Amino acid sequence: MFESAELGHRIDREQYRQREPALRAALLQAQFDLGAQKRFPVLIVIGGVDGAGKGETVNLLNEWMDPRHIDTHAFGAPSDEERERPRMWRFWRVLPPKGRIGILFGAWHTQPVLDRAYRRIDGDRFEQQLQEIERFEQMLSDEGVLLLKFWFHLSKKDQKARLKSLEKDPLTRWRVTQEDWHRFEKYDRFRKVSELLVRRTSTATAPWLVVEGLDECYRSLTVGETLLAAMRSRLDAQGRTAPAGGKAEAAMGDAASGKAALGAAAGMMPVLPPIDRRDLLSMLKLDQPMTREVYEPALELLQGRLNRLSRDTKFRQHSAVVVFEGSDAAGKGGAIRRLTAALDARQYHGIPVAAPDEAERAQPYLWRFWRHLPRRGHFAIFDRSWYGRVLVERVEGYCSEGDWQRAYGEINEFEAELDAHGTIVVKFWLQVSKEEQLRRFREREQVAFKNFKITADDWRNRKRWNAYQQAVCDMVDRTSTSVAPWTLVEANNKLYARIKVLATLVERIEQAL
Amino acid sequence: MFESAELGHRIDREQYRQREPALRAALLQAQFDLGAQKRFPVLIVIGGVDGAGKGETVNLLNEWMDPRHIDTHAFGAPSDEERERPRMWRFWRVLPPKGRIGILFGAWHTQPVLDRAYRRIDGDRFEQQLQEIERFEQMLSDEGVLLLKFWFHLSKKDQKARLKSLEKDPLTRWRVTQEDWHRFEKYDRFRKVSELLVRRTSTATAPWLVVEGLDECYRSLTVGETLLAAMRSRLDAQGRTAPAGGKAEAAMGDAASGKAALGAAAGMMPVLPPIDRRDLLSMLKLDQPMTREVYEPALELLQGRLNRLSRDTKFRQHSAVVVFEGSDAAGKGGAIRRLTAALDARQYHGIPVAAPDEAERAQPYLWRFWRHLPRRGHFAIFDRSWYGRVLVERVEGYCSEGDWQRAYGEINEFEAELDAHGTIVVKFWLQVSKEEQLRRFREREQVAFKNFKITADDWRNRKRWNAYQQAVCDMVDRTSTSVAPWTLVEANNKLYARIKVLATLVERIEQAL
Repeated sequence: MFESAELGHRIDREQYRQREPALRAALLQAQFDLGAQKRFPVLIVIGGVDGAGKGETVNLLNEWMDPRHIDTHAFGAPSDEERERPRMWRFWRVLPPKGRIGILFGAWHTQPVLDRAYRRIDGDRFEQQLQEIERFEQMLSDEGVLLLKFWFHLSKKDQKARLKSLEKDPLTRWRVTQEDWHRFEKYDRFRKVSELLVRRTSTATAPWLVVEGLDECYRSLTVGETLLAAMRSRLDAQGRTAPAGGKAEAAMGDAASGKAALGAAAGMMPVLPPIDRRDLLSMLKLDQPMTREVYEPALELLQGRLNRLSRDTKFRQHSAVVVFEGSDAAGKGGAIRRLTAALDARQYHGIPVAAPDEAERAQPYLWRFWRHLPRRGHFAIFDRSWYGRVLVERVEGYCSEGDWQRAYGEINEFEAELDAHGTIVVKFWLQVSKEEQLRRFREREQVAFKNFKITADDWRNRKRWNAYQQAVCDMVDRTSTSVAPWTLVEANNKLYARIKVLATLVERIEQAL
Repeated sequence: MFESAELGHRIDREQYRQREPALRAALLQAQFDLGAQKRFPVLIVIGGVDGAGKGETVNLLNEWMDPRHIDTHAFGAPSDEERERPRMWRFWRVLPPKGRIGILFGAWHTQPVLDRAYRRIDGDRFEQQLQEIERFEQMLSDEGVLLLKFWFHLSKKDQKARLKSLEKDPLTRWRVTQEDWHRFEKYDRFRKVSELLVRRTSTATAPWLVVEGLDECYRSLTVGETLLAAMRSRLDAQGRTAPAGGKAEAAMGDAASGKAALGAAAGMMPVLPPIDRRDLLSMLKLDQPMTREVYEPALELLQGRLNRLSRDTKFRQHSAVVVFEGSDAAGKGGAIRRLTAALDARQYHGIPVAAPDEAERAQPYLWRFWRHLPRRGHFAIFDRSWYGRVLVERVEGYCSEGDWQRAYGEINEFEAELDAHGTIVVKFWLQVSKEEQLRRFREREQVAFKNFKITADDWRNRKRWNAYQQAVCDMVDRTSTSVAPWTLVEANNKLYARIKVLATLVERIEQAL
């Protein structure tokens, strides 16, 4: 894997001097076009061995281009706010928006490689993390991020020489730490682990480019020209069908302004309703009995249990993400209020999910949900959620079929990360019958202080009842996992629905503690 | 001060039951209107003694209204990310955007009161903090925030009884901590300090409402009806001239879409140019000599010094905010690049300031700068800054005269907070002559890879040259303080300007360490 990067690649300084000015001007132009188009972000990931010129190259990129439009991030020990969220949160929060360049100095691969080289994790766990990385990078790529990964390599001999020479110079001595030498002692192990990483996470959409770090002129030109070619190719593809990522990006652009093409992408498994018309929702018995006499004491009991759980010292090591989805007028708001009434207001945040704002539109789809993940000991209550992509966006054609089809996998991955961190994920689908919905719509139109709850959108959605039902069934089939199962709530009787929601939530938290 | 809140205020339960449903419906309606208008945010600050029903009242507000559109925040020990920024950062980051309600459970007053009651600070320091609070709240109010402050009070006897009764009940025992009793022992001292706080920070725009906390029905109705009246009054003032805050708000609304009225507000001190036409800028000798032979070694020397300073262990206890303002084509970008070239890319962030985005428009003016404040050991380099308000927004009439007039004071306050935290604030105004600017515009139009730097805005601004110069002189006069002085840079010679910028920065950092 690294053999080609131990050939002693060199460019003589004269040649470098000749090529550098044009490269620099072209990079600056590409950066300007990127900012003007605002169609996609550029994310540069830097990995590799110590002393191979990573820092110098990043500084050089900032010198060649306009540093005001580049964000460079390094990752030391996570802050306490980062430790309280899933591992990937610290990377999500620094993703560059469309039009900007982000440089990550070390990234999601760094910790797994260290852990594996120091044998803190076994091969299986490492393999699992490689798969997570692969899926994450695939998602970035599908979302239109131009992801460029550079791996800086030095042979064992060269690394030793380099560290020594840095140490000798009083101006660079500070850069060589004990840690560097410590890692150098484990060179062979690091090499083996890194090779596995580079091999396994070099996919068609986001390959690693291994760069020999020995010669400054060579590595600088290699990185600069690769970056330029990649940016130019994506920038100039405007209007034409772009390769990987291009479709998603075009669709996102359209989604912001209206509709995307609905036509099934070629080669994609078509989604059909069950031939016998039996599906999860049609099997539900929506009218469930529950009288106020049963409801009142049951509610009080469950709220008491939930309140005690929320104050349990064990819950301080967890957090909860509660998702409410459902037909319009299914009673989500009422169910949420019975839940929050049991909690201290300082302990939860409600997140009503509507159209994404400007900053959110400039990021991958899931970004706007990552930013609301709760700290330990807290609840985040989502009124509608990331499932919008496979519900309203699918049905109304706000995203392409490719986008919502891949969303199932991305969502499962997201929820698995939450679960791995100790976040309890509880998801409710509240279902009412078509008749009950109509009754509630009419009622809302008549009662004065309820009538702001009924909008033109509600009537429009109702017309597509069957399409929505189909989307819900697919969603449940594909995203009800052992770590984050869906609970379908028969909601024609509001009292019954609220009790089922609370009972389920209490049960899930009790299991988790 | 607290006498009226020790009268044993009561409302009987029957009366409460009668009034509560209408209040609740009206609050819900007001909350809906707030979200629909999106003209201003509501910020509710809760203070007062332990056991006086603060938590219960906040939970009740969440129950009465829609908890999905209320954000409640409590403030424990600051996180490490918070500790690395000025004291007020943690409050700025949770300010509700227009259209939402934020509830702060304890706020900027909490720490000063504790510190003073426990005699960790003296009376002078406390007084100074009260003044800071007053100015901060005045700013919120001027920015259109509907700020409501409730102080929950109990007499010494009542507090003791209340804490005991909470302790007796197994369901509420957890709520009484050692800390509560510890504070109770100091009741008299807390009372005295609180009284001073409440008196000194009860201004016309943001008075404290002292609420007797003994009777649940009384305190709930008092808070609920006050909140309702305040919201309704602002909501219904739409279109009409609103009282305090209303003008600012209207101006902000206009600023987003275009222009605000420029007419001088009645009673405001008019801003006139000096009668003898002598001003700071006209006294500058813009053509300063500097040859490349002098420049090259000087640049290298200064970059070396800056680099060493940036790695000084003492700098890790500080951070730096560097502000670049200047005429168009004055060479800000070039100066910034000579600066960043001396730093490691991981240590700085460039923040190009353009039009505010959607989230930023929904917040007080300074919010979008607070969010970019650097962590310890880091540089934030602003290419244009908060001074936009007193430059382009003033000259082009994007905000009202009242807004830019008060901005001087708000900016000084902001920079003083940065300084108090150990952040080094360095501000540059780069000035070129009108002739030199024209030469550079023409040059930029001709050179291919520079021509993206010249826009219609640049030509437009040039037409208002004199108005801009006047605005700059006023800005320097009013915001050049001992903690954050302006450095005027004669920039007709780019080499000279870059050296002056670097030398000044190096000197300021050396002084601070």
